[in-house]
Amino acid sequence: MNYLAVKDIDSIKQWVSEARKLKEDPLKYKKLGTDKTIGLLFFNPSLRTRLSTQKAAQNLGMTTMVMNFDKEGWALEFEDGTVMDQGKSEHIKEAARVISQFCDIIAIRAFASLKDKAKDKAEIVLNGFAHYATVPIVNMESSVGHPLQALADAITLEENKGHLGGKKPKVVLSWAPHPKALPHAVANSFVQMMQKQEADFVITHPKGYELDPDIAGDSKVEYDQDEAFKEADFIYTKNWSSFSDYGQVVSKDPSWTISKEKMALTNKAKFMHCLPVRRNVVVADEVLDDENSLVIEQANNRTYAAQIVLKKILDTLKM
Amino acid sequence: MNYLAVKDIDSIKQWVSEARKLKEDPLKYKKLGTDKTIGLLFFNPSLRTRLSTQKAAQNLGMTTMVMNFDKEGWALEFEDGTVMDQGKSEHIKEAARVISQFCDIIAIRAFASLKDKAKDKAEIVLNGFAHYATVPIVNMESSVGHPLQALADAITLEENKGHLGGKKPKVVLSWAPHPKALPHAVANSFVQMMQKQEADFVITHPKGYELDPDIAGDSKVEYDQDEAFKEADFIYTKNWSSFSDYGQVVSKDPSWTISKEKMALTNKAKFMHCLPVRRNVVVADEVLDDENSLVIEQANNRTYAAQIVLKKILDTLKM
Amino acid sequence: MNYLAVKDIDSIKQWVSEARKLKEDPLKYKKLGTDKTIGLLFFNPSLRTRLSTQKAAQNLGMTTMVMNFDKEGWALEFEDGTVMDQGKSEHIKEAARVISQFCDIIAIRAFASLKDKAKDKAEIVLNGFAHYATVPIVNMESSVGHPLQALADAITLEENKGHLGGKKPKVVLSWAPHPKALPHAVANSFVQMMQKQEADFVITHPKGYELDPDIAGDSKVEYDQDEAFKEADFIYTKNWSSFSDYGQVVSKDPSWTISKEKMALTNKAKFMHCLPVRRNVVVADEVLDDENSLVIEQANNRTYAAQIVLKKILDTLKM
Repeated sequence: MNYLAVKDIDSIKQWVSEARKLKEDPLKYKKLGTDKTIGLLFFNPSLRTRLSTQKAAQNLGMTTMVMNFDKEGWALEFEDGTVMDQGKSEHIKEAARVISQFCDIIAIRAFASLKDKAKDKAEIVLNGFAHYATVPIVNMESSVGHPLQALADAITLEENKGHLGGKKPKVVLSWAPHPKALPHAVANSFVQMMQKQEADFVITHPKGYELDPDIAGDSKVEYDQDEAFKEADFIYTKNWSSFSDYGQVVSKDPSWTISKEKMALTNKAKFMHCLPVRRNVVVADEVLDDENSLVIEQANNRTYAAQIVLKKILDTLKM
Repeated sequence: MNYLAVKDIDSIKQWVSEARKLKEDPLKYKKLGTDKTIGLLFFNPSLRTRLSTQKAAQNLGMTTMVMNFDKEGWALEFEDGTVMDQGKSEHIKEAARVISQFCDIIAIRAFASLKDKAKDKAEIVLNGFAHYATVPIVNMESSVGHPLQALADAITLEENKGHLGGKKPKVVLSWAPHPKALPHAVANSFVQMMQKQEADFVITHPKGYELDPDIAGDSKVEYDQDEAFKEADFIYTKNWSSFSDYGQVVSKDPSWTISKEKMALTNKAKFMHCLPVRRNVVVADEVLDDENSLVIEQANNRTYAAQIVLKKILDTLKM
Repeated sequence: MNYLAVKDIDSIKQWVSEARKLKEDPLKYKKLGTDKTIGLLFFNPSLRTRLSTQKAAQNLGMTTMVMNFDKEGWALEFEDGTVMDQGKSEHIKEAARVISQFCDIIAIRAFASLKDKAKDKAEIVLNGFAHYATVPIVNMESSVGHPLQALADAITLEENKGHLGGKKPKVVLSWAPHPKALPHAVANSFVQMMQKQEADFVITHPKGYELDPDIAGDSKVEYDQDEAFKEADFIYTKNWSSFSDYGQVVSKDPSWTISKEKMALTNKAKFMHCLPVRRNVVVADEVLDDENSLVIEQANNRTYAAQIVLKKILDTLKM
């Protein structure tokens, strides 16, 4: 069993429910992971993912081995048949099979390059490991998705919709400006997760920021942010770079920053963001510091998202 | 309970006594830290602190998560109200609160910049974490102090004054030359620790190397190193850069190097240094390799200093 | 007890036999390392060694502390009597003695510089630690040898010679081309290990690639690769740079690449390489992906090689 994408969740409702039970008693399955090892391989920086995934593994009694692969290991080749006489020292074929012998589960973070759309879309690092490894693979953010984040977001949504009294929530994914080009992974996985939810889901962004149509599918897009925010119960904010003009920053329009005024258009919406967030660029201090901000709890739920994923994988290993 | 500075020690005598008992039986409280996690966040290099704090946590049964924050995480913003459109990706407000959800204790190393005196004195990294975190914070050397080192030094002093037969020891903190500009943290905390001890304490350094007057207080300063060394029972050596001419190297005078001849002026003094030390610049080989050198034992006591601090914090968490 | 070189194996036959038993029941000695700590100090990149040595330590119940010494600690001075006023902050004398207080075993990886033959041959980092540390030292690849790899190779040879029905195997160590200058450590230790085995052992390489004569001794050298491959049961391939023209790449002759045609000259030989390996430069895809390739199993055996070494050291510590 791999956890590569939101599609690997067979029932979001069920997983969220189980994760919330784990949250009430995180050490309940402390013996499940005894003598099992998870390798966390990072090709990019990480704070929440690094610590929450370790924490989740520890809650399950697993041993963790953390490796900053790009700095501590060897540069990897992913193409088949290459004459490896340039900068790459090791092929994914060997690396994935070898690490599988030291780890019972391998978790991988490898961001999009934002330079080569085809390679990014092919998720060559994640899928390279998934193809050649002989143990389960967990996606800690790949070029296309961040399904641990999406699962944590699903938990957070579920925990915070009680006040709607059963009404289908209106959830808005809003682009916001950012000084640098960022990947689409978080937005992609959030969209895919929302597509599996009972919700009135709207994506809003300036023209030119359409997400990969293969992912956005027929999710509703509203180019007028103010219009999108009307009656919203949850505002999920994230910057991403252009997909059509791949990896480019085509707008930094400050009128898209999430402000108190914008939030006033909503139905007292809760504010969500995956973090890290640039204050007063993506979102104003007053929104982030408001009691309706869920960002800290979202990060907390990363532990239980990772823990339910690892628990399900461990369950299959014990069989 | 935080451990940010020497002032957080309510009784040095008591803590040193308890630490020495831990040293005799380091695994006595092996169960105290079960299922507790400490996050060690490094913004700077570390050898002794990195390993001794891990060791201390392990002796108490804790799980450790080590992170080189500056390289493995995101660049942090510490100012309130900033428009974060430059190099900083995450605000301390989020980082500290988020990490508090993954760790029961957070320990932080963040050296002085030696460029901005006001910011260094404000200890923005350490105090940023202390302000926003919701779990105890331990200082693994901040811009102003290194209280784990000072506590280890207090243990070492206590262990090595038996031969004085109850006489109040004369302890000299001596500046020594160094090719690079170094922070004041070790010297500051040593001074603050000595100010709480029964001792004849003297600081000696060339003019221009006065420590922050808010820390030095009315501790005795003697500009003549030879005079200071007379009758000394302990010579504690450390380089630091100028405080008044902030962060500058205003002297590399080799006559201040601790030599056999200098040590001959003392009352067969024990030699102390926090390490790392540059041989034959700060101190001559013959002094460091002499049986009166305590530097290795000082490093050993780092484990028990950290362990007593963590034990006291764990005691409060269990309440 | 140190494990610095192949010569530290008193009986290869016995160690291989014990390692193979551990492989059948890796957790049998899970309690042996309780409350014991191993420090893994890396001065260079590492994948297999990093993970397999951690895994081995965990299988024995030890706690591990991993440190990228060159990046996370202080630059070390190894010369005696130096005036340390340049780039080095700490002397091996202090570092080794200090770390010995935090770790029960210290394992070290420090590659050859390939610039200074005398210093490389003196193994200043490994031997510096071995000289000043007060705990056992394990070599995770030094400038001269990689005895954990050689031990894993000995295990792999033993596991794969059953089909020879007791016949003394013909084992060929073949140089192969590589774009960069590589150290001699793996080849050296393999030679030293083979010199202790009952085997028909041949080294083949282009002229100019003779290994250190102090290591090669009277091992047979055959400059004609095709001739060497005849009747071979095992082809162990590795690139190394010139020893006489120290650290230089004096040939990249592609006719030395291990190909299907070359392997056809052998007695259906098994193919071995320590990894990482550059595909289609050192060896062709078709050889590496053939069922006669042992490279993945060699990597797997790194765990049991490390584990038998650590077990033997732990046995001495318990006495």
